[in-house]
Amino acid sequence: MIIDCHGHYTTAPAAHTAWRERQLAGDAPTYPTISDDEIRESVQGQLRLMDERGIDLTIFSPRASAMAHHLGDARTSADWTRVCNDLVHRVVTLYPDRFAGVGQLPQSPGVPVERSIPELRRCVEELGFIGCNLNPDPSGGHWTAPALTDPTWYPCYEAMIELDVPAMVHVSASANRAFHATGAHYLNADTTAFMQLLQGDLFADLPGLRLVIPHGGGAVPYHWGRYRGLADMLDRPDPARHVLANVSFDTCVYHQPGMDLLFDVIPADAILFGSEALGAVRGLDDRTGHHFDDTRRYVDAVPLSEDDRAKVYEHNARRVYPRLTVRPSRP
Amino acid sequence: MIIDCHGHYTTAPAAHTAWRERQLAGDAPTYPTISDDEIRESVQGQLRLMDERGIDLTIFSPRASAMAHHLGDARTSADWTRVCNDLVHRVVTLYPDRFAGVGQLPQSPGVPVERSIPELRRCVEELGFIGCNLNPDPSGGHWTAPALTDPTWYPCYEAMIELDVPAMVHVSASANRAFHATGAHYLNADTTAFMQLLQGDLFADLPGLRLVIPHGGGAVPYHWGRYRGLADMLDRPDPARHVLANVSFDTCVYHQPGMDLLFDVIPADAILFGSEALGAVRGLDDRTGHHFDDTRRYVDAVPLSEDDRAKVYEHNARRVYPRLTVRPSRP
Repeated sequence: MIIDCHGHYTTAPAAHTAWRERQLAGDAPTYPTISDDEIRESVQGQLRLMDERGIDLTIFSPRASAMAHHLGDARTSADWTRVCNDLVHRVVTLYPDRFAGVGQLPQSPGVPVERSIPELRRCVEELGFIGCNLNPDPSGGHWTAPALTDPTWYPCYEAMIELDVPAMVHVSASANRAFHATGAHYLNADTTAFMQLLQGDLFADLPGLRLVIPHGGGAVPYHWGRYRGLADMLDRPDPARHVLANVSFDTCVYHQPGMDLLFDVIPADAILFGSEALGAVRGLDDRTGHHFDDTRRYVDAVPLSEDDRAKVYEHNARRVYPRLTVRPSRP
Repeated sequence: MIIDCHGHYTTAPAAHTAWRERQLAGDAPTYPTISDDEIRESVQGQLRLMDERGIDLTIFSPRASAMAHHLGDARTSADWTRVCNDLVHRVVTLYPDRFAGVGQLPQSPGVPVERSIPELRRCVEELGFIGCNLNPDPSGGHWTAPALTDPTWYPCYEAMIELDVPAMVHVSASANRAFHATGAHYLNADTTAFMQLLQGDLFADLPGLRLVIPHGGGAVPYHWGRYRGLADMLDRPDPARHVLANVSFDTCVYHQPGMDLLFDVIPADAILFGSEALGAVRGLDDRTGHHFDDTRRYVDAVPLSEDDRAKVYEHNARRVYPRLTVRPSRP
């Protein structure tokens, strides 16, 4: 079985997106009626791609760039988050064998993250979701939040552990003109989060916490020697033990040399198959004739033992997201 | 000949650093007398390392993390920059066959960058320097400056072109608690700068401009497929032509798999040998028994044609820094 740990609902019906625009414009719109057929139609492209690529199941969350926790206030974010998660729940309900839900959280800059816990509980306990996306920078590129190792994040982590769900550490759109979202902000966030975890001792405090750093771990595998050296200078343990026991990287790396490097330096136990399709990079690579984000081709081309391949495609995801296995296949 | 394009004077005499501390404390201290012997003594470790590694010449600039353009005001920054550049000039004067000077610029957040031009001219015309370091984020991790493609940077670029010197795009310390300097801010800046250049069309306006993005290009080579795909989506040319005709990456990548990837995806014409020794990562890698930052070992182990190897070790540096060749070997 092949599980893609990283898909966002980037093709949500236009009425959903229009509601958000009216919300941000200051209206108090009634959420539109969206039929099951519209939902089905909206994911046909995603399903076709999954079929073509042999992906059985996608761990599916609201569009990351649209979370935009920096817009409006805590109420804006809470209302938007709820309708986004409900819409993903409808997709999962219609296609329970093809999608498992992951929720966004109603974060806002400066608002204590524990206010996100009720929505996290609702996602897991009522909607049957198996994880959440946690934004390390709700300010959208101004990086005003404390490091992920700061105790202010702990209440949210403790709820995740209690619910037995992981978080993917994933920023949203950039409100900082210096950072292109998918070309800089996303990768910078991955790199920043990893370094925060390397510097701290979060998993000694919370050994049951599991995090996923997307986009192949940002710059980290390419600079793995730098991180090993910095850990040594900072008197921290080897990051392969200190961080990767609780943190996984996905395989959202869109060319073969990058994928080869990822598997060369990061233990297979800490890698989850992911593509972020339909996501940031949708075109065809004219060198290969295939989509840049068809990451299965690159992973298939990496020489791996059958055991490691099965871990990366399925078993690691089941370990990191245990509710994937226990959830009813037909809710 | 082997030229290391990326060395900072991280071992400057204590009196120099003490002067900075007093300056930041609000004193108006007289700059201390530092003898030639003290200068010589301060670079013995650097010279020994260069000898051990077979590095003939290091392109040498003030300590990057100490530029700290965000501290004090424009006057603070100007005064500090001048004494830092003068000190590098003394090193170069004492060891003209081993070091070539590169200057920091007196930038400050919100201050027009053209105010840096007189110091740039002084560095090149009076001190014989061959390039400068340009901080794309003088705010120290708050990223308040416009993108490098913004016309506000052009006066500085035009002066660089007139003087025939390149800039290394290099941030300084992080004043943002989210970012560890050498483990996040540096690499994020490299990634951010590259994406700004990919999005824009700077080199169509200024074809004579040459930039160096350090630390192996941040996350860029590892995610080269992402950048090729984003360029396609944004209707920009292939970044190998569009950006790398004017931009080089250095080889500050501290393990073999990362170095192999760099050379696998980036044309040798766009790679300059560099180590950043003595820099961020000084320890011994217990897997190899050698220093993490002994990048010559990794480059030597990459299968390259003799022609490409000579480009990376010497000829590219002479092309990007033409004043390296014309400068008097004994000032």
